[in-house]
Amino acid sequence: MESWPPGGSGPAGAGPRLRGLRGADLAASASLLSGAGAEAGCSAPAVAAVLPAGGSGERMGVPTPKQFCPILERPLISYTLQALERVSWIKDIVVAVTGENMEAMKCIIQRYQHKGISLVESGVTRHRSIFNGLKALAEDQPNCRLSKPEVVIIHDAVRPFVEEDVLLKVVTAAKEHGAAGAIRPLVSTVISPSVDGCLDHSLERARHRASEMPQAFLFDVIYEAYQQCSDYDLDFGTECLHLALKYCHIKAKLIEGSPDLWKVTYKRDLYAAESIIKERISQQICVVMDTKEDEEHVGHRLEEMLKNELNIPHISDIIETSSSHFEHTCHIYACKSHIWQRSSANHLRAMLQFCLCECYGL
Amino acid sequence: MESWPPGGSGPAGAGPRLRGLRGADLAASASLLSGAGAEAGCSAPAVAAVLPAGGSGERMGVPTPKQFCPILERPLISYTLQALERVSWIKDIVVAVTGENMEAMKCIIQRYQHKGISLVESGVTRHRSIFNGLKALAEDQPNCRLSKPEVVIIHDAVRPFVEEDVLLKVVTAAKEHGAAGAIRPLVSTVISPSVDGCLDHSLERARHRASEMPQAFLFDVIYEAYQQCSDYDLDFGTECLHLALKYCHIKAKLIEGSPDLWKVTYKRDLYAAESIIKERISQQICVVMDTKEDEEHVGHRLEEMLKNELNIPHISDIIETSSSHFEHTCHIYACKSHIWQRSSANHLRAMLQFCLCECYGL
Repeated sequence: MESWPPGGSGPAGAGPRLRGLRGADLAASASLLSGAGAEAGCSAPAVAAVLPAGGSGERMGVPTPKQFCPILERPLISYTLQALERVSWIKDIVVAVTGENMEAMKCIIQRYQHKGISLVESGVTRHRSIFNGLKALAEDQPNCRLSKPEVVIIHDAVRPFVEEDVLLKVVTAAKEHGAAGAIRPLVSTVISPSVDGCLDHSLERARHRASEMPQAFLFDVIYEAYQQCSDYDLDFGTECLHLALKYCHIKAKLIEGSPDLWKVTYKRDLYAAESIIKERISQQICVVMDTKEDEEHVGHRLEEMLKNELNIPHISDIIETSSSHFEHTCHIYACKSHIWQRSSANHLRAMLQFCLCECYGL
Repeated sequence: MESWPPGGSGPAGAGPRLRGLRGADLAASASLLSGAGAEAGCSAPAVAAVLPAGGSGERMGVPTPKQFCPILERPLISYTLQALERVSWIKDIVVAVTGENMEAMKCIIQRYQHKGISLVESGVTRHRSIFNGLKALAEDQPNCRLSKPEVVIIHDAVRPFVEEDVLLKVVTAAKEHGAAGAIRPLVSTVISPSVDGCLDHSLERARHRASEMPQAFLFDVIYEAYQQCSDYDLDFGTECLHLALKYCHIKAKLIEGSPDLWKVTYKRDLYAAESIIKERISQQICVVMDTKEDEEHVGHRLEEMLKNELNIPHISDIIETSSSHFEHTCHIYACKSHIWQRSSANHLRAMLQFCLCECYGL
């Protein structure tokens, strides 16, 4: 069983270890947390995620629902799934899509090799789609490979930039409080109109927040809330935290999220998402080390050096380099972009050599 | 004196007429309006605009205040000024900038040849900056070239995509109601946190709106409101409509705005703005006709044809073409981009010839 909360330095299973650059950050953020869930070594809650993806995207002004809009030729939802898949402690991801888009979604899963995804048919509203996702996770479903999680994350298919640290924070807070959700400061003042289309009153901006995603809940809490939920709430409601409060009297813990959590809503957001994805692609470096346990510090050192190098970035092609000094191989895979010069491969190779020399005095 | 509200077909003054492609739309939107200001031929209110531009842009995560961030090498605020300058019935534009940025702002005005701009020093908050702008417009300022307008528009320096039609709507509504502002549907649910960082309650999304810019006011109303305003409001308030309500009991008319009204707030918004500006540049066509009054229908026909052609777009270089059939010249200036083929110049020329033939049976 994994230690909880997860960090960058937990024990690894068999096979090559996949090292991200955020391990240290995550460990740091986890150490800031308190409560039952945050003590190192306690058992990990079983976590699943539900993604309602049945929307029509009418605000986008394009015929394709926004979650299927291509960004650099890949559908938006695939980036969101990738963001969740990277989180090793999310066991299952349930996506709710319309019957009409079911085949398209299956193709996306196959083409981009998404793993651990289950599809359910969406409802006519967001809440009904989420409810369908929760039903699929509930224990009493026959012939279902899914098992009931302790905590369920609810996220939007159109928020592709969610990071592991905020997922960790909402899950940990949900374990303690029953419900938790990410919030952001309001960008605009919120007002209440009167029936004649004039200003009735404006809300004090500093006393309110925008409720964003991800949110997380003890599964039993949110499932109970949806089961008790009125048709009016299912048809016109928009906020899961509200259901947990109204039907289960759970006051959700609010977690300040980063600007990355924004929802792709309008056409301009597609432009922004494309630029961000381009920028991120050119900064991703993934180090796969097939090495013995006691040589892990080489990887740590390399990780530190790469972190400092991330201002250089824009890495071209896939670079593979290996050291002949050890029985193991150490590969650096850097992802595709078109800006960094070919000489960067040599630069990465030199960095690896430097780490090996530093750690082993070679 | 100009007719009010302005449309695409009003009488022109001396010199060449500048024809946009939105004339027909504006006339249509004006005809939808009712009230004293909307009858054709009534006198135009004197309209000025105030732009608070003293913000530090801390949410952007970059050292340059966001209004000065370059988009395609031109500062964001210059696009916003351009959008307001295009509106012939806005007589003065007052921009409030920090003393520190005063020289930079003067350089921008000079470099991009902005006209009719007056600069005032901003205050330490948004409201104090707006108040300084209003003071400059008030009648009792000595040695000031500005004159007190009947209606004042308040807009943000970081909302560069404002269109004439929404400006027209808020000004017309302000003339009738005393105050008016653009609103948009909420993208996220708004919640109210309790002091312990948990959810206190969430607001019903359908009953609230985001208050956006532009807003417009009878000058005497908003100036009175700012003069009576408490220091607390000046320091912590964010909403001009609220001041008009609180201090002058004016319930602002709320105008549904387009998604274009969004505020450049985060780094992602700069990406989006850049993409939108690139797209718009490649679609702008400006026809300058130096022709006699009775030949205006040639221009109308050309305008109609160009509208239909806007799906082709991406126009290369500046194209100038003239007809030798008439004493007047007719120039088509199409702005710079890099995608459309050189043959497009011939295409435009052929369209003009077609219009001339159609209108004059040549």
